[in-house]
Amino acid sequence: MSLELGELHDECGVFGIWNDPHAAQKAYWGTFSLQHRGQESAGIALLQGSNILVDKGMGLLQDAVQLGREESPFGRAAIGHVRYSTSGESSDLNAQPLLMHTRFGPLALAHNGNLVNHRRLRRRLESEGAIFQGTSDSEVLAHLLARSRKPVLTEALLEASQALEGGFAFVLLTVEGIYGIRDQHGIRPLVLGHTPEGAPVLASETCALDIAGAKWERDVRPGEIVHLSDLGLESLSFSTGTDLRACAFEVIYFSRPDSQLQGESMHLKRRLLGKKLAEESPCQADVVVGVPDSSLPAAMGYAEASGIPFDFGLVKNRYIARTFIAPKEHLRSQGVRLKLSAVKEVVEGRRVALIDDSLVRGTTSRHIIQLLRQVGAREVHMRIASPPYLEPCHYGIDTSRAGELAARNLSLPELTKLVGADSLAFLSPEGLTDALGSKGWCMACFGKGYPVPIPQEEEENART
Amino acid sequence: MSLELGELHDECGVFGIWNDPHAAQKAYWGTFSLQHRGQESAGIALLQGSNILVDKGMGLLQDAVQLGREESPFGRAAIGHVRYSTSGESSDLNAQPLLMHTRFGPLALAHNGNLVNHRRLRRRLESEGAIFQGTSDSEVLAHLLARSRKPVLTEALLEASQALEGGFAFVLLTVEGIYGIRDQHGIRPLVLGHTPEGAPVLASETCALDIAGAKWERDVRPGEIVHLSDLGLESLSFSTGTDLRACAFEVIYFSRPDSQLQGESMHLKRRLLGKKLAEESPCQADVVVGVPDSSLPAAMGYAEASGIPFDFGLVKNRYIARTFIAPKEHLRSQGVRLKLSAVKEVVEGRRVALIDDSLVRGTTSRHIIQLLRQVGAREVHMRIASPPYLEPCHYGIDTSRAGELAARNLSLPELTKLVGADSLAFLSPEGLTDALGSKGWCMACFGKGYPVPIPQEEEENART
Amino acid sequence: MSLELGELHDECGVFGIWNDPHAAQKAYWGTFSLQHRGQESAGIALLQGSNILVDKGMGLLQDAVQLGREESPFGRAAIGHVRYSTSGESSDLNAQPLLMHTRFGPLALAHNGNLVNHRRLRRRLESEGAIFQGTSDSEVLAHLLARSRKPVLTEALLEASQALEGGFAFVLLTVEGIYGIRDQHGIRPLVLGHTPEGAPVLASETCALDIAGAKWERDVRPGEIVHLSDLGLESLSFSTGTDLRACAFEVIYFSRPDSQLQGESMHLKRRLLGKKLAEESPCQADVVVGVPDSSLPAAMGYAEASGIPFDFGLVKNRYIARTFIAPKEHLRSQGVRLKLSAVKEVVEGRRVALIDDSLVRGTTSRHIIQLLRQVGAREVHMRIASPPYLEPCHYGIDTSRAGELAARNLSLPELTKLVGADSLAFLSPEGLTDALGSKGWCMACFGKGYPVPIPQEEEENART
Amino acid sequence: MSLELGELHDECGVFGIWNDPHAAQKAYWGTFSLQHRGQESAGIALLQGSNILVDKGMGLLQDAVQLGREESPFGRAAIGHVRYSTSGESSDLNAQPLLMHTRFGPLALAHNGNLVNHRRLRRRLESEGAIFQGTSDSEVLAHLLARSRKPVLTEALLEASQALEGGFAFVLLTVEGIYGIRDQHGIRPLVLGHTPEGAPVLASETCALDIAGAKWERDVRPGEIVHLSDLGLESLSFSTGTDLRACAFEVIYFSRPDSQLQGESMHLKRRLLGKKLAEESPCQADVVVGVPDSSLPAAMGYAEASGIPFDFGLVKNRYIARTFIAPKEHLRSQGVRLKLSAVKEVVEGRRVALIDDSLVRGTTSRHIIQLLRQVGAREVHMRIASPPYLEPCHYGIDTSRAGELAARNLSLPELTKLVGADSLAFLSPEGLTDALGSKGWCMACFGKGYPVPIPQEEEENART
Repeated sequence: MSLELGELHDECGVFGIWNDPHAAQKAYWGTFSLQHRGQESAGIALLQGSNILVDKGMGLLQDAVQLGREESPFGRAAIGHVRYSTSGESSDLNAQPLLMHTRFGPLALAHNGNLVNHRRLRRRLESEGAIFQGTSDSEVLAHLLARSRKPVLTEALLEASQALEGGFAFVLLTVEGIYGIRDQHGIRPLVLGHTPEGAPVLASETCALDIAGAKWERDVRPGEIVHLSDLGLESLSFSTGTDLRACAFEVIYFSRPDSQLQGESMHLKRRLLGKKLAEESPCQADVVVGVPDSSLPAAMGYAEASGIPFDFGLVKNRYIARTFIAPKEHLRSQGVRLKLSAVKEVVEGRRVALIDDSLVRGTTSRHIIQLLRQVGAREVHMRIASPPYLEPCHYGIDTSRAGELAARNLSLPELTKLVGADSLAFLSPEGLTDALGSKGWCMACFGKGYPVPIPQEEEENART
Repeated sequence: MSLELGELHDECGVFGIWNDPHAAQKAYWGTFSLQHRGQESAGIALLQGSNILVDKGMGLLQDAVQLGREESPFGRAAIGHVRYSTSGESSDLNAQPLLMHTRFGPLALAHNGNLVNHRRLRRRLESEGAIFQGTSDSEVLAHLLARSRKPVLTEALLEASQALEGGFAFVLLTVEGIYGIRDQHGIRPLVLGHTPEGAPVLASETCALDIAGAKWERDVRPGEIVHLSDLGLESLSFSTGTDLRACAFEVIYFSRPDSQLQGESMHLKRRLLGKKLAEESPCQADVVVGVPDSSLPAAMGYAEASGIPFDFGLVKNRYIARTFIAPKEHLRSQGVRLKLSAVKEVVEGRRVALIDDSLVRGTTSRHIIQLLRQVGAREVHMRIASPPYLEPCHYGIDTSRAGELAARNLSLPELTKLVGADSLAFLSPEGLTDALGSKGWCMACFGKGYPVPIPQEEEENART
Repeated sequence: MSLELGELHDECGVFGIWNDPHAAQKAYWGTFSLQHRGQESAGIALLQGSNILVDKGMGLLQDAVQLGREESPFGRAAIGHVRYSTSGESSDLNAQPLLMHTRFGPLALAHNGNLVNHRRLRRRLESEGAIFQGTSDSEVLAHLLARSRKPVLTEALLEASQALEGGFAFVLLTVEGIYGIRDQHGIRPLVLGHTPEGAPVLASETCALDIAGAKWERDVRPGEIVHLSDLGLESLSFSTGTDLRACAFEVIYFSRPDSQLQGESMHLKRRLLGKKLAEESPCQADVVVGVPDSSLPAAMGYAEASGIPFDFGLVKNRYIARTFIAPKEHLRSQGVRLKLSAVKEVVEGRRVALIDDSLVRGTTSRHIIQLLRQVGAREVHMRIASPPYLEPCHYGIDTSRAGELAARNLSLPELTKLVGADSLAFLSPEGLTDALGSKGWCMACFGKGYPVPIPQEEEENART
Repeated sequence: MSLELGELHDECGVFGIWNDPHAAQKAYWGTFSLQHRGQESAGIALLQGSNILVDKGMGLLQDAVQLGREESPFGRAAIGHVRYSTSGESSDLNAQPLLMHTRFGPLALAHNGNLVNHRRLRRRLESEGAIFQGTSDSEVLAHLLARSRKPVLTEALLEASQALEGGFAFVLLTVEGIYGIRDQHGIRPLVLGHTPEGAPVLASETCALDIAGAKWERDVRPGEIVHLSDLGLESLSFSTGTDLRACAFEVIYFSRPDSQLQGESMHLKRRLLGKKLAEESPCQADVVVGVPDSSLPAAMGYAEASGIPFDFGLVKNRYIARTFIAPKEHLRSQGVRLKLSAVKEVVEGRRVALIDDSLVRGTTSRHIIQLLRQVGAREVHMRIASPPYLEPCHYGIDTSRAGELAARNLSLPELTKLVGADSLAFLSPEGLTDALGSKGWCMACFGKGYPVPIPQEEEENART
């Protein structure tokens, strides 16, 4: 499932840099390199003296933001954000960084993830007189912070963080430092690095460190608050029962192939997923074709392990816009062809092993298989490099309603018929665990249990 | 001093209508008719079921807002706002109506005026954990409201209003009604009317009632909260020591000539100011010329009382934009000519009595007199239809710094020289009082005392 | 009939300046001061070395054009244009100046007026292989020029101009000079002046000379080509049978009040029209009210001659946009109120003499009279400061179809009923001639004969 | 050399469809699928009755054009164009389709390619009185057409086409049909197909036929005019000495991999180029890495033939915009990292065979090799899947100046040093010919002679 093909949306990307003379520009670049994590809105916040300047808007960073784009304006610390809305309506009001004025001075906040207890927290805060700007859950942390009786920001933040439940990574810009916060289970990613000159950098992925010229040092730990300031790096723990359960989908699909999670290469992991898939679910095929771009490493791995040759049987249109309206009615079936084309000579008369990284609703898969058949594929054997997607994510990934999860609601034969494949197979959860190489992963969406309990009202919301 | 010539800026205009099937459109029209009160930002908030929709932006209503512009969208109550920033920086963040989510549900707020104690209130609220979206003083009321312990919105609002000091008119849209609040001295205007069908309407000026098809009923009283809801109109008083001191500048310059304040016609009052001026400060002239558009009634009054013929000696360019950049350097002297032209045949070889409604910094007056001389005016006798402007306004009018008030810092001969007139005279405070016809006016800017005491930090701020 | 009220549209304004270090900026200002002559599109062309740069677009100059707006870019000659489309559809393609590449090099062209023989000329040119960019008649001159066998541009232009029939003023920018061309009858205006430094300037009105710091020298003569170049000013005549018949509507309505035509003040002429009108068609009234802004001088003249006091009984909203959509259906009757308001205190209980400069379709008049009655006018006696509009203009004024000319199709009683007045009277053609003070006027629209014969196909076109 | 990395720019893409109820929408899609051929401007022209409507602008089709985007507006024939400027300055004026009004009625023209004799033709036409709108060579055909004495459009077009020299494909939309014209040597591509319902379609590439639901029938022949009308398809020949010399770079780089030229697959040809390259220039490497996206097939072919494993060692940022400004000064070296990232785990400690499809200026190659070394590549052996680029193209490809062609001006060792590779090799011209499989190719840029002689003034222009 390719990013632009869009069944599964990542939620957000965050970035922060402290004490760098090119803070604005590096924040722009770093955030730019996280664009794949969210295309709905983008923003940069820059510390100038004791003021914080915010430039944000709907759409891609390049269209929405000027700050940091060309010349580096004055300012020695900055954070950035890209967003695909998960909770909260899509509008300018929810674009981040959020700028707020509290007793600790101005504060800009960028958030990736979802707080499962945000409804309850919000109700409590509102009853105590809090005023919310928008409808997103990201403001909750700021209110907890502002209301803490602790005299010092760091202490107040520690207290506030303890109330949060879910999967989250926060980056906060204040006058006296940047704070990075990662949830107790490390579900959402957050990495830490330094530039050669010693400026500390936080980001959702290591690719953003690279572009900012920073070297990866370590991932922020589950339940950790890192405080980047002129006094250096301070680390605090806001939770005792931490237990790493990083989102497996970051490996399967979200992260850029040149990023590392826990120091492991996404690209290599994806090749491994393809290999495991070939071992578990071989097929009789003449060519292995991956859905571009995200499934190509898995397709290569599948080809390698199976001995079936890999080729580029599908081509993506590089100029497709996110806002492209699907043509109506009798013309609609041609919609996917605007995004994807089949290379006839690779496919015609052949048995195709079609590799995709995941399958959520199944409609895109159906269109792709149709496309392959139209140019003459003799058979299409679909192989998915992840297990069946059975449960909605509550930690920041937009998997819509439970009712839309094809693998939850259909048997394998029904699913095979739905997508129109000659055969269909998924990677097993065990195969996934093997490939990922440790136990520390959240596999809730594959039916392996939610590491953080889901309040009933959240659950009901996802079911309707 | 004409509106677009821009020495003295009004602050804001507010509008509200409850229970009208065309609420959005009428709010758009009503707000549109208040455009002269602020051109920096504009917005409309519409109640749809239990949601409030806000459309706002920088610039004129027509450029910034779509909501209510053409077709009337569903929604039975709406408020509107136009703004010229007085406190708070100019940015999208400060455009109103402000939308906030409190324990009383969503709430949209539109504000005209200035709270003299907003810095103190804000410090207190922040220390208690409040988070402010922007830097304007308008949020303070909402926080007081949200923090009140009173269980019912009306009671909470009553409590919150008691903390406010200054000149202000608020219009609040909530799910269960619209609230209008006017300061204890009625410094800022707020009028009340009804449509023929019985929908109650609030507005800064009666011209907005007219355009919404509503009939003026009365001005909101000093210290009064009016609550428009499905239960009808409720009136509450949040202050005991009320004492009407309406802003005299609303009569002199701000309000539209077809508006009424306290039931009195602005147009007629301005003619009367011109007559008083002629009686107090006659001159030997061949023609009376007013600075268009706002000073034309006063000029007519002056002509009438003096017997000197009135004529249109100055013409305004109707297409001037607010963002027009003054040409630089040696070309700058032609700047005012883009906005204003002299009609040579009216002026040439004549002694001109030039009537303006007020004089603040004096620079525009100097340019106008220069213009008249360039086309051959033999003499220019400038007459100002208001007293010398001596003190900065703290109640919502942008009179910049005390140091820029020409009449405060210069003697009459110096001032006459500065503007380049053959003679210069102001209406006396007594003449103004006579023309206004009662005692209930704020004349603080003419040195007649501030009805609401000014905290020292505000005062210092204005002095620097 | 006020400009923004929009029954009668002027067509275009042109400007040109040669050999001035601030050519771009002065062209911008000059064109800006002609904005009242057309608000549909605007443009500036600047000579830079041997290239011509054009910046143009739909809408007002300020919105459409950057060139010359702030800093004066390099370039020593420039022309400008504002347009309200008469022939040719409204689109970017027809915005002017038109840039063309001919054997004489690059050439930019700005045109005011209408060629009555353009259809015939265009057919002939097309049959000879000419290619037209758009549908306007302005390209015809360029094609005639490009096709002339004369070796020198000036001679070719002389030849080309002889083929043109109608009312027109052209300004052409070439590498070696600016040309100004006025039609054989001087129907459309074109004036000539010089800056103090000696740079020659051409413009549709003298107000544009003023803003460019130039002094009026004379009007370009009927049938004259003026050539502004480094060799000085050259005058050529392309027609022998010239006979001045300047457009009377320039005096009645189009020109700015501070402009002069043939050295005569528009403002004073309009007062005179009002006086004549009062002499010819007195009425029993308590107050004289003019429709702002263009009819105010005539209203003053009427008041003066009749002894009835003048007052500002109608106020125009200064912020109305040209694109404002009239509300639909049952709300439509309030449409005109967005543009115009009545001052109740001036009108209530009174007999009003309502002065407008012209009456074309009558619908706006009906709305205005309605407005006056709504605020309590006892009687409304409408007086029009020009004769009945009987025939469509073929020389560059958009008077729509003959079928829409109210005075052509209705008797005076019918017309009085249509507008809803208690009485209605027009200035007589003789009164107009008297006021204008000479015979040299085109009064074709008042039924006094077309100075240039109208080809049958044009005439039929106007009738349908 | 990847498209977005931008050393070599294709020029344009054209599309046309006649007699289809969804003509506008299909033209939009077809043109959209040609977006890789030009990103500077885009446009659609639609025949509505006897009018032609044009919607065009700067930038991508999706940003510039509304016509045909969503709902199919009325109109049964349409053409489309995307452009990267080769001759003619970049501006709105040169965006196509060009709309012109001639004696044959309205005519819209879309052009891919370059006329080598356009300067001479233009001078001749201008001397005969022709007026050009812009500076591109595309108008020349229209003027020749309009000036032809032939009474019928088809005959006039035949005559006009005979005067054209160079590499070109024109698509013309007229009221009575669409014309497609391909140059005498078929340098620029143009293919012909039909929809299932029989509507004829023309396009630069077969991928545009696919998206419009049309089936490829044949390539338009060198020197052929095809006329699509209600009378069916008419074929005319405007040249006798035709001789196919199709642009080899269409295969090497320009065309989409899923397109066919002369019925041959671009994807397969590129794999073959990679294989030939491996045979001719093997190297000692551990991994084969292609520059994404265009060089991936050649890289696969190289891997296949050499036995060295292929992997994705470079990743492209999918969200890079064409207008992205390269950071200045000391930050500039990081510029290419915004577009391209290296996957460390694929490259670190390895000897990399880096495959690119072509090398023009060499600067991008240098940056890429730098990138690979930064993540630890031990050796980089660069292999180019086409011969050294020695001569500028005069037939429609923007290869800048001769002075910028690295392989023309440097020896292989110098070039190897410039790009920083451990070794560098190009495909031989013979290897290219072998892979392309016939003699009918233009290989002028590889020093194999210009099929159409280049006038001296063109040549000099390219040399400076």
